[in-house]
Amino acid sequence: MTALPSTDTLLLEQADGVLHVTLNRPQNRNAMSLEMVEELRAVLAAVHDDLGVRALVLRGAAGHFCAGGDIKDMASARATGEDAYRTLNRAFGRLLEEAQAQPQTLIVVLEGAVLGGGFGLACVSDIAIARQDAQFGLPETSLGILPAQIAPFVVKRIGLTQARRLALTAARFDGSEAQRLGLVHFAEGDSATLEQRLAQTLEQVRRCAPGANAQTKALLLSTDVEPLGPLLDRAAEQFAKAVTGAEGSEGTLAFVQKRKPNWAQ
Amino acid sequence: MTALPSTDTLLLEQADGVLHVTLNRPQNRNAMSLEMVEELRAVLAAVHDDLGVRALVLRGAAGHFCAGGDIKDMASARATGEDAYRTLNRAFGRLLEEAQAQPQTLIVVLEGAVLGGGFGLACVSDIAIARQDAQFGLPETSLGILPAQIAPFVVKRIGLTQARRLALTAARFDGSEAQRLGLVHFAEGDSATLEQRLAQTLEQVRRCAPGANAQTKALLLSTDVEPLGPLLDRAAEQFAKAVTGAEGSEGTLAFVQKRKPNWAQ
Amino acid sequence: MTALPSTDTLLLEQADGVLHVTLNRPQNRNAMSLEMVEELRAVLAAVHDDLGVRALVLRGAAGHFCAGGDIKDMASARATGEDAYRTLNRAFGRLLEEAQAQPQTLIVVLEGAVLGGGFGLACVSDIAIARQDAQFGLPETSLGILPAQIAPFVVKRIGLTQARRLALTAARFDGSEAQRLGLVHFAEGDSATLEQRLAQTLEQVRRCAPGANAQTKALLLSTDVEPLGPLLDRAAEQFAKAVTGAEGSEGTLAFVQKRKPNWAQ
Repeated sequence: MTALPSTDTLLLEQADGVLHVTLNRPQNRNAMSLEMVEELRAVLAAVHDDLGVRALVLRGAAGHFCAGGDIKDMASARATGEDAYRTLNRAFGRLLEEAQAQPQTLIVVLEGAVLGGGFGLACVSDIAIARQDAQFGLPETSLGILPAQIAPFVVKRIGLTQARRLALTAARFDGSEAQRLGLVHFAEGDSATLEQRLAQTLEQVRRCAPGANAQTKALLLSTDVEPLGPLLDRAAEQFAKAVTGAEGSEGTLAFVQKRKPNWAQ
Repeated sequence: MTALPSTDTLLLEQADGVLHVTLNRPQNRNAMSLEMVEELRAVLAAVHDDLGVRALVLRGAAGHFCAGGDIKDMASARATGEDAYRTLNRAFGRLLEEAQAQPQTLIVVLEGAVLGGGFGLACVSDIAIARQDAQFGLPETSLGILPAQIAPFVVKRIGLTQARRLALTAARFDGSEAQRLGLVHFAEGDSATLEQRLAQTLEQVRRCAPGANAQTKALLLSTDVEPLGPLLDRAAEQFAKAVTGAEGSEGTLAFVQKRKPNWAQ
Repeated sequence: MTALPSTDTLLLEQADGVLHVTLNRPQNRNAMSLEMVEELRAVLAAVHDDLGVRALVLRGAAGHFCAGGDIKDMASARATGEDAYRTLNRAFGRLLEEAQAQPQTLIVVLEGAVLGGGFGLACVSDIAIARQDAQFGLPETSLGILPAQIAPFVVKRIGLTQARRLALTAARFDGSEAQRLGLVHFAEGDSATLEQRLAQTLEQVRRCAPGANAQTKALLLSTDVEPLGPLLDRAAEQFAKAVTGAEGSEGTLAFVQKRKPNWAQ
């Protein structure tokens, strides 16, 4: 098991190939401080190459996911000037870029406040499971500021058409609407069904081969930046290696033998 | 208040930081003539740099939004030849490009016919509010012609999957279906709820800072044409300037003081 | 009528300007063999320039669309090594590229299994009509392999947000869910309504001019790879040619004369 960095703002727990990460600043509805950003980045980096970690589950302590940027960090940046704000903001964007590209399957569990930066984090997940009564929104422009690092990820997540209305009205909406907009995959009525959905999702991820999932995720993400022809050429090479490699051999054999492959035990 | 051009095909009214533009050729269900295209472009240009105009509301007179291109203009272009058609068509495309990039929040109210060019205009709005019984469609190919300037904006609005079916079948559909397809944000049952939705939307836009909204809109639109890394670097600069600037200072102070910021009065 | 290649794995039937193609390996739930891939490519190539073929209808024999890749082909590739797998895989990707770009309107009718490669074929259709009880899924990573050629087409079809969950969980879902995800346009309850929907769709396609539809389809697809300004310039040229050409003249005249245009007889 990979050694994890010690963290003040996050609770970490590894079990059954899953790393559970809990944002833990409940007094601030888990608002995103610079310290939390850096700790999250360090945790992602620590497990980056460990395919023994099959999935990451990111959620918030005490009934909220994340209420956005931290006011205190903002205030201390104010004392230091424009440069400090730029650095603070860009660091959060780097977290989003890194979380988006993380090889492991990233699952977010969304309760309570999912605002601003919390909204951004939801946008880079592979699977998002929300409470129907969670509260989503991009309040930035109502505060005279910009959803600067978040905006591109929102467009990528739900498309320009929905993103522009949400960002230009600062409208709040709930988990059911988030599902309708395609921001989350599931909207559950209570804690019990939320946890059932998470357990079912983890079981599905465990049925999938770790290396195949990591490569597939990278392929999906590269469709946005790589021309189709060369991408398909490269994908065919990867296919050939995968099917003749350890996972492909085990997976197709297990299929013929009507048993679970070794990664799904 | 910015001086507006005088217009024959449009009704213009400014009130409370909102410019109301009404397509006014009711005898033709507000079909888009070259004159109307040029007048719309002139109006957009006139208010382009005036952030005192917070929102534009675009709708049609007498129960229709816009039934598409004007047959009479088509006929006179026929007399002149291919060049005249090309110019006519491209001018409409320029209107769509300019409306898409307009710094102000653009709201469309969609009643009755929303066809061809009218459909195109709906696709460049930030917020689209339709009557459930509005009639949408792309009839071009059933007339032996092409939705030439419109097609790219339809793909951007609702994605390739839905756009291809609509363009290749010329199918008609109503406002409820338009909402399901993600073409419009709201589908309202009658005039009263339509006007309530518009009033609520304008109130939401007024809560957002004018400069922050204009910059956010530009950021959202540039995600399509600018690589992610440089875009996020630039966005961090904009964030730092916004938070230390007039709107950011007022907005965060108002938040702490639990009062409305000055732009939301 | 264009001469069609003779085929072992496909049933072909031309009627009323429609080419009906039926995947016909019912003993394997129409799993995609290399032979079937090459026969499909040959059929698409044969009718490519024949606008007398207005639409292609692709479906599967005996209650299934297509269950994915063929195990026997996989096994014989295994004997030959990595190169054979790469070639096999890439050939299927070429089929997807060619079907996506086919000038005719491509309609798929989806019953039973729509898995892996079958899912990929559904993603390049212009109009997809499913049974509510069809079974969709991307099982690849649960077999230790990759949806290598399919992944980019899934992202293009339903967006990254839904694609990543489906590919990383191998989840199965039905036709109603496929409609909700935007993968298919219609989900019908039984065979009778499925055939009615197909007939209605073919009638709509026949109302549209063949050349205009082919050009419009090409325009829609090029929005993804061509910058907006030059694309709109080119589209305006095409518009001018279309409106002054045979289809545009007939279509606008028929409209004025309140009769059907000659292509809709």
